[in-house]
Amino acid sequence: MKDPSDESKGPIDFALSCPLPISDYPTVQLAHGGGGKLSQLLIEKLFVGAFGNAALEQLHDGAVLNVGSSRLAFSTDSFVVHPRFFPGGDIGSLAVHGTVNDIAMCGARPVALSAGFILEEGLSMEELWRITTSMKEAAEEAGVEVVTGDTKVVDRGKGDGVYINTTGLGLIADGVEISPRRARPGDRVLVSGQLAVHGIAVMSVREGLEFETVLETDSANLYPLVARVLERGGSRVHVLRDPTRGGVASALNEIATQAGVGMQLEENSLPLREDVRGACEILGFDPLYVANEGKCLAIVAPEAADSVLAAMREHPLGREAAVIGAVVDEHPGKVYLRSRVGGMRVVDMLSGEQLPRIC
Amino acid sequence: MKDPSDESKGPIDFALSCPLPISDYPTVQLAHGGGGKLSQLLIEKLFVGAFGNAALEQLHDGAVLNVGSSRLAFSTDSFVVHPRFFPGGDIGSLAVHGTVNDIAMCGARPVALSAGFILEEGLSMEELWRITTSMKEAAEEAGVEVVTGDTKVVDRGKGDGVYINTTGLGLIADGVEISPRRARPGDRVLVSGQLAVHGIAVMSVREGLEFETVLETDSANLYPLVARVLERGGSRVHVLRDPTRGGVASALNEIATQAGVGMQLEENSLPLREDVRGACEILGFDPLYVANEGKCLAIVAPEAADSVLAAMREHPLGREAAVIGAVVDEHPGKVYLRSRVGGMRVVDMLSGEQLPRIC
Repeated sequence: MKDPSDESKGPIDFALSCPLPISDYPTVQLAHGGGGKLSQLLIEKLFVGAFGNAALEQLHDGAVLNVGSSRLAFSTDSFVVHPRFFPGGDIGSLAVHGTVNDIAMCGARPVALSAGFILEEGLSMEELWRITTSMKEAAEEAGVEVVTGDTKVVDRGKGDGVYINTTGLGLIADGVEISPRRARPGDRVLVSGQLAVHGIAVMSVREGLEFETVLETDSANLYPLVARVLERGGSRVHVLRDPTRGGVASALNEIATQAGVGMQLEENSLPLREDVRGACEILGFDPLYVANEGKCLAIVAPEAADSVLAAMREHPLGREAAVIGAVVDEHPGKVYLRSRVGGMRVVDMLSGEQLPRIC
Repeated sequence: MKDPSDESKGPIDFALSCPLPISDYPTVQLAHGGGGKLSQLLIEKLFVGAFGNAALEQLHDGAVLNVGSSRLAFSTDSFVVHPRFFPGGDIGSLAVHGTVNDIAMCGARPVALSAGFILEEGLSMEELWRITTSMKEAAEEAGVEVVTGDTKVVDRGKGDGVYINTTGLGLIADGVEISPRRARPGDRVLVSGQLAVHGIAVMSVREGLEFETVLETDSANLYPLVARVLERGGSRVHVLRDPTRGGVASALNEIATQAGVGMQLEENSLPLREDVRGACEILGFDPLYVANEGKCLAIVAPEAADSVLAAMREHPLGREAAVIGAVVDEHPGKVYLRSRVGGMRVVDMLSGEQLPRIC
């Protein structure tokens, strides 16, 4: 965890019209990439500020575009996870699942991926081959082709082995209308399974933690589960989101802000494995903020909650799906959690950097 | 320039079925990203070997996909240019032009871009704002929107300020059929202007060279010029390519190999500024191998050469366009140059690394 030091924090007078909230930090901090408050500020003030357009302002996992007579989903993600290999996955499979899932969260069927590699001089060719093979297997399993690519090599000490960007293209079926702005009071909040597994699996390698059973990443292609959810829930499925960086807390905060609604979660309902809970306690993490790579949040009309929950549970990736809360009229833009003993606490956006380079 | 050292070159026994020509180099070399022979080997043996599919095997600047009822171009590029600011441009404008041009080289109208940033902790926020503003201006000028994005932050010493991936989506009009495999004997080879300008502009900053006039990058959006070429040449325009990394020589070698044809260039016809020629001599570069970022090669049926040349010259970016050679029956897969004095020499693929991190 990195705190902005005195040296790097302070007012700055940009010659250019840099948006103010960014200029509180004259240099980029790790937390600007952590999926929490600073990430959000950077994206909203700097990138949306510069590129501002209707698609980008949706602040969705991907853009929805009308091209020709088709409705397309288009989404990009760079992967810088450290270490590159971890239990149950690696940077290659993660790079495929991450983008395929972002496409799926737009309610789209993934069609094609691009892959951009930034290699550091000296990377072992065998490792690159293992990563590429892993990407290929993940893509095949997801029924999507890597159709175009790019490779750059940077000098030793200017990278970290390999960084991978994948960008995906998907096709949205008629009648599907997924957008964070569609969350409305009364909707139920569902999650497709156990929280915090990816983050803890990666951290366990970094920190040398050992579990009684190996804790593997949950990284997986969520499209088949999403297809089932859409088939069953139709237009009553309002929002889909995979809670990666910043976890469930950050994802729900973003949606609450965009839709201008409140959310209330029930601690009792959160699916959380005992070993993950224990690791979170040891490491000082709140599992609501830890990254997931194979879990899906769905916000659905109340009358559809039971059937969507059943649809999730019929799929192997959704066996432990649960309704974890509801969208409410009160406290718009804020997420509250009712604890096991009945107390209420605010679940804010992540404010610092909890887990750098988790994806 | 980096030569594979003894330590890093030698046979290797991959546990996995790594394709042999790659295993001559057990680690990644700078030349694997240089756009020449090693780049081609890495792409063909490793990436196409792993991901092999019809779109990728085209080895075009981008993939052509049928999605719904539309024909789309889809292309990705990462930008790692060093330094980030150079005369006439920066990594931001380059990242927009590079991908917009790859889309245009598929004969497509650019529609949307994604932007993936990999930031190094400690990057000046003002610099990031300048780069973003430059991207925005380039995108506006190209009539394309940045509709989705991603930001990752890596720790100090694991990046180099900022790397940018852009991925583009374009729409191909009916009747347009651009593919490297369409080059056929008799076709004329055209270039839209002066060679080697981008590479020399960047190198002049790195090496502290001074010219009588400032030598600015040629980085520009080529779509308007391409639209004019397609309007005039129609289906008689067979191949389009922007000769970036590896220059005109590498681009034409790739096309010659893919189409199974030979090419013959005329040294006398190559558009080359005196100051660029001089700088190439000082630096020991062959201008045929130096990167361009605002030039387009067009391979067209002989009867269309005059009208396509006229179309190029009517556009500000094509004032100095020229016919520089022809596609021939002889020496398939090879490019020859007839020198000023009439001698013939082979123009091979770039074999080492001439200019690392030029784009």
